[in-house]
Amino acid sequence: MAKINENYQKLPGSYLFSEIARRVEAFQKEAPAESILRLGIGDVTRPLPRVCIEAMHRAVDEMGAQESFRGYGPEQGYDFLREAILRHNYTSKGIGLTAEEIFVSDGSKSDCGNIQEIFSVDNRIAVADPVYPVYLDTNVMAGRTGKLGISGHFEGVTYLPCTAENDFSPELPKERVDMIYLCSPNNPTGTVLSREALEKWVAYAREQEAVILFDAAYAAYITEEDVPRSIYEIPGSEEVAIEFRSFSKTAGFTGTRCGYTVIPKALKGRGANGEKIALHGLWNRRHTTKFNGTPYIVQRGAAAIYTEEGQRQVKEIIGYYMENARLIREGLEKAGLKAYGGINAPYIWLKTPMPSWDFFDKLLREARVVGTPGVGFGPCGENYFRLTAFGGREQTVEAMERIQNCFG
Amino acid sequence: MAKINENYQKLPGSYLFSEIARRVEAFQKEAPAESILRLGIGDVTRPLPRVCIEAMHRAVDEMGAQESFRGYGPEQGYDFLREAILRHNYTSKGIGLTAEEIFVSDGSKSDCGNIQEIFSVDNRIAVADPVYPVYLDTNVMAGRTGKLGISGHFEGVTYLPCTAENDFSPELPKERVDMIYLCSPNNPTGTVLSREALEKWVAYAREQEAVILFDAAYAAYITEEDVPRSIYEIPGSEEVAIEFRSFSKTAGFTGTRCGYTVIPKALKGRGANGEKIALHGLWNRRHTTKFNGTPYIVQRGAAAIYTEEGQRQVKEIIGYYMENARLIREGLEKAGLKAYGGINAPYIWLKTPMPSWDFFDKLLREARVVGTPGVGFGPCGENYFRLTAFGGREQTVEAMERIQNCFG
Repeated sequence: MAKINENYQKLPGSYLFSEIARRVEAFQKEAPAESILRLGIGDVTRPLPRVCIEAMHRAVDEMGAQESFRGYGPEQGYDFLREAILRHNYTSKGIGLTAEEIFVSDGSKSDCGNIQEIFSVDNRIAVADPVYPVYLDTNVMAGRTGKLGISGHFEGVTYLPCTAENDFSPELPKERVDMIYLCSPNNPTGTVLSREALEKWVAYAREQEAVILFDAAYAAYITEEDVPRSIYEIPGSEEVAIEFRSFSKTAGFTGTRCGYTVIPKALKGRGANGEKIALHGLWNRRHTTKFNGTPYIVQRGAAAIYTEEGQRQVKEIIGYYMENARLIREGLEKAGLKAYGGINAPYIWLKTPMPSWDFFDKLLREARVVGTPGVGFGPCGENYFRLTAFGGREQTVEAMERIQNCFG
Repeated sequence: MAKINENYQKLPGSYLFSEIARRVEAFQKEAPAESILRLGIGDVTRPLPRVCIEAMHRAVDEMGAQESFRGYGPEQGYDFLREAILRHNYTSKGIGLTAEEIFVSDGSKSDCGNIQEIFSVDNRIAVADPVYPVYLDTNVMAGRTGKLGISGHFEGVTYLPCTAENDFSPELPKERVDMIYLCSPNNPTGTVLSREALEKWVAYAREQEAVILFDAAYAAYITEEDVPRSIYEIPGSEEVAIEFRSFSKTAGFTGTRCGYTVIPKALKGRGANGEKIALHGLWNRRHTTKFNGTPYIVQRGAAAIYTEEGQRQVKEIIGYYMENARLIREGLEKAGLKAYGGINAPYIWLKTPMPSWDFFDKLLREARVVGTPGVGFGPCGENYFRLTAFGGREQTVEAMERIQNCFG
């Protein structure tokens, strides 16, 4: 008799975005003539950079010719891409990694979700509250948590509150934790962890022999000089941290799918008898057994952004979104709303003068603008709200005017 | 203190292909002038069909234009592909599935490896011996087995011997099993399960409430009329079987990455309290949480093979490989070696007159041909050897001449 994985029963339905869709649909039925502006979804809207398009056309042609056809590639990614990533994001910044420590994948969501498999189910995890749901859900599925309590927290998980009171920079946990998920620039709050904050976490992880799972999918959006783009800018982190990076938001690859994970060879966990075991080898075994590589065509597209022209095009697209972010921040302030983030990230996190869902309804009905209720990302997101900078310029400007008319 | 997943420690190194590489390299050092022919690897060599190349060029252009750009797609795949798969492989064959029951992915290896996550770790698995290693390794990683014994078998796993004595068609297990991996056309043996054999397994699974995990990645290679292409040709199977299919060998997508998994809504497992729970919903949760969809460009390429012209091109490529298979079968027979498979599959499984590795060495040194020792796929593969039909025509013909000179 095939029994199911009971841990799946602990998961609530993916309530957030379906509830948003339900409310929007209901409003549209009531008022079909109203045009609704959507600043809720974390998906890019600008086309791929020209360099990627050109590189992918060339790669498609290679796949159609006998002499240049490619079958299975290395599961870890082609050297041309691993080396371009290494040079551009690490070596040139003085970070001493090697290409072998970079695993190319089909995106950060997969890697952030799968990484927990190489760890013991007995480890205790720490996550921010509010949090990107994938970190938590995949640990629930694996049996690393208890049940969901009425507070909205899973038993057996250490939550790290991130609110305006602590500048969205979590404090060290009081109890022992083994795996710590950190995301900077942060989804959903749009804020970043400072160098001092990261140094504090690295020191803690070294002392506790914990592992930091550092999600830097939005690193390309950092504009301020002194904010770390990589956790490996912090000395000693190569012994305690895994880093996740992505082409999704950097170069518009949400529908093209490419990311990578860095696991330094110096990073070790403990075996049952206390022996030290390199996590690099475990992930390599996982990656080669359960994954067969990112499409060659896609890897060629990704590598193209590391050319000089590619860098120029990527900066232009990110600049476009970040100008939206500035307009949103300023627009919200003019409307008398307090906004966070949006300087080093494409997300703006605003403090709502009422519960998140009430604010959602008011914004929908009075301004015809859709955003995401902060409480959907965790209990500490209550009385916050997320807007994203990924819309078109006109739509963004119009949404801010409507919000000012509504709240100003 | 971050503890690792101890189950990884049970896995032996991926010995097979690295040992082959080591022996080939050693021989090349001894005899650098000799040209070696490789019929060992299960990777395609012909370029992608023209229809795929054309469709992917169009899709790349769509991604470069504002009005046709695509961000996140549905994790389960675009409707255009799910519906084309449904029509071509199921509805047209009288199989009553719906597009919602088809999950598009980045390949069968991922799905075959990940599917076990939705099941309890207490389930007992059954696998063929010899076997494609992914089924077994992913269950070892998940903790569904004991240790590797000196026999080459993991404790706590039911092995189903497949040898010439039972026509490579496994018998029903004597003990209770919950998850049964079946692969037809089979890698490595190149043989298929008959309709009667599949009926026997479906009846067994229905009676035992077991789930059949049916890997049909090589279905496109079946040439004989009465051999089932899909397990859903067997009445009642929709309540007990999951099916894995792939574009890798069908259309040369090993480096382009696309496959799909079928989970009928009628298929149920049992919860801890004995309640019936649909596996479709569990896999949907897993797929949407840990995966973000197959690249749009790749899905367009895959859909192109379901056009009339696409079908013609795919048949031509498969015909090319199957002519190689015929040449290998006949060549081996002329050399006095007994060969199996190669009629409904691109693999030829031959009986060796000596242990598998001795045969490997003899073939390498005397015929300068590389294949894969059968024992590498499991203890029952001892005294067998795998050759593949994926090489070029000239290389295949030359390899057979050398084998005849050596053994004939």
